[in-house]
Amino acid sequence: MRITKNRVIELKNRPSVYSSAACAGKTESEGPYREYFDMCFEDDGIGECSWEKAEEKLLLKSMECATEKAGLGFDDIEMIFAGDLLNQCTASSYSVRNKGIGFAGLFGACSTMAYSVALSSLFVNAGYVDTSVAATSSHFCSAEKQFRYPLEYGCQRTPSSQRTVTGAGAYVIGKNLKNRVCVNRVLFGSVIDYGIKDSSNMGAAMAPAAADSIAIFLEETKKCPEDYDMILTGDLGAVGSSLLKEILKNEYNIDISGVHNDCGVMIYGNNNSVNSGGSGCGCSALITAGYIMQQLNKGILNKVLFAGTGALMSPLISLQGESIPAIAHIVEFIGME
Amino acid sequence: MRITKNRVIELKNRPSVYSSAACAGKTESEGPYREYFDMCFEDDGIGECSWEKAEEKLLLKSMECATEKAGLGFDDIEMIFAGDLLNQCTASSYSVRNKGIGFAGLFGACSTMAYSVALSSLFVNAGYVDTSVAATSSHFCSAEKQFRYPLEYGCQRTPSSQRTVTGAGAYVIGKNLKNRVCVNRVLFGSVIDYGIKDSSNMGAAMAPAAADSIAIFLEETKKCPEDYDMILTGDLGAVGSSLLKEILKNEYNIDISGVHNDCGVMIYGNNNSVNSGGSGCGCSALITAGYIMQQLNKGILNKVLFAGTGALMSPLISLQGESIPAIAHIVEFIGME
Repeated sequence: MRITKNRVIELKNRPSVYSSAACAGKTESEGPYREYFDMCFEDDGIGECSWEKAEEKLLLKSMECATEKAGLGFDDIEMIFAGDLLNQCTASSYSVRNKGIGFAGLFGACSTMAYSVALSSLFVNAGYVDTSVAATSSHFCSAEKQFRYPLEYGCQRTPSSQRTVTGAGAYVIGKNLKNRVCVNRVLFGSVIDYGIKDSSNMGAAMAPAAADSIAIFLEETKKCPEDYDMILTGDLGAVGSSLLKEILKNEYNIDISGVHNDCGVMIYGNNNSVNSGGSGCGCSALITAGYIMQQLNKGILNKVLFAGTGALMSPLISLQGESIPAIAHIVEFIGME
Repeated sequence: MRITKNRVIELKNRPSVYSSAACAGKTESEGPYREYFDMCFEDDGIGECSWEKAEEKLLLKSMECATEKAGLGFDDIEMIFAGDLLNQCTASSYSVRNKGIGFAGLFGACSTMAYSVALSSLFVNAGYVDTSVAATSSHFCSAEKQFRYPLEYGCQRTPSSQRTVTGAGAYVIGKNLKNRVCVNRVLFGSVIDYGIKDSSNMGAAMAPAAADSIAIFLEETKKCPEDYDMILTGDLGAVGSSLLKEILKNEYNIDISGVHNDCGVMIYGNNNSVNSGGSGCGCSALITAGYIMQQLNKGILNKVLFAGTGALMSPLISLQGESIPAIAHIVEFIGME
């Protein structure tokens, strides 16, 4: 079901990405994007006594690193937009304690990188703040424990399952057009539920949401896939990516296969132990705040449509027999001449 | 610690509250504000098979009711801003499935009514949307089960504990100045942690955050408490309200005692079984979307400073020995002549 009515928001003042930072865990640092990460941790404990505290520290590191790369301090940041997968978004809210900065806590599951960048950019575009931070994180160990099984069980994983990325990403977004990359348009996804109930097949739950948002975005802006150097989905993984292309082709007559890539497919490269690929807020955080921003800054990429995808999955509601709804928020990044 | 730098955002286009709706559970409907609620349910199950589904339905009812009162349908709504206390904010995301409306999922614990109204108003003010919905909910049974103990244990409650309100509230906010009440200013709180570890004393955890936001708001706008008909805090309860007044007086030399009220103190009236009062997103949702909006519309109140307070409490992180941070988001409602 699609009710289109100016869902795309144009950012006429073109908020600028001052900087971004990607902080990665061990397995992620062993993948093909290591060189694009600002920090690579060899121990997923990040020197902390719990996985939750480790994730909190990873997120704080990414915010500190991005702020420093922008030549700023926390005192220069007027708002922080952040969320994560942990119950009560603790990585986000605990990492920004007592900093005297306005905080907007978000829940968009794995779509949070796109979601936080969208909100942050809109606040800058409207003049509500001059400089803001968008950030998110996930951690394999804290997520498995919360959403599936304790790692100690040593559960077998199905081929469609995805590995939650241990990583955090942060963007500093502001009003001065001093940087090459800016946010040109955003779209907030609607919640789509196709009735998928398998929590080991998030790609299938998220693909319809990604298709819906991408189709609406292209239709409203009268763009075609080839207008972009890349249409990048958050973390559909291999299974979800195939489904996305199929849905877009069959239901909307849109062929994105020439320009599509997916953070979940990219992050671990040919590592066969991760099944269908990566997932989690940290997945698109690492790929976009690390690799994509560098490619845009160098002019290797110029127009990237980033659809952050999130499965709004609750273990409790799943046990009650409910299906898994999903959402996809879109950010259009462009490189200014 | 306070770093003030234009934290208050002025809404020059004065987004208008088209309507609001309050849907209440059984105990709440037996309190002194029954007449201000749009729906009163005699059974907290709301005809559903789980407490979580009951909360989802309550939230949906409040959104439907508010939209109808505004003379609109869901097709006229361009964005929904909503959040709740359930893990993965399921009441919010499940209630808006397949409606084709952009959705922003929020986590601000019990501050979510003020938080969602603030974001919703800012989107309207900037012209990003013409009409939007802000909504939130909580349910005594789903919250007790998730945050404390299963109700079946029959635990004794301490005098400082608060009862999570079963209720939902929704606002329709738009650009046309056709209604009397508008949103004039907002402030996003920062996360404040005074080291409180007692999950049965949320008032103490939240009072410092409320004091911080109120003090910054009054300082930046050069207002004094008497400029308002009411300074209304979200759900500090009796214990937290006393602490708030003490902190404001001792640390900031601000005396709000002549104009202060608290949704947590108000909601259950003299019902002694609720200890320190009400709490939960539904608490300030019922009081503001029900009682306060009616008083503003009638001109009995004209200027209300609403500080939604939230304890960002996680049972898991609490078990790891951590304290409970809190946040307070502020919305300034004014009645136009």
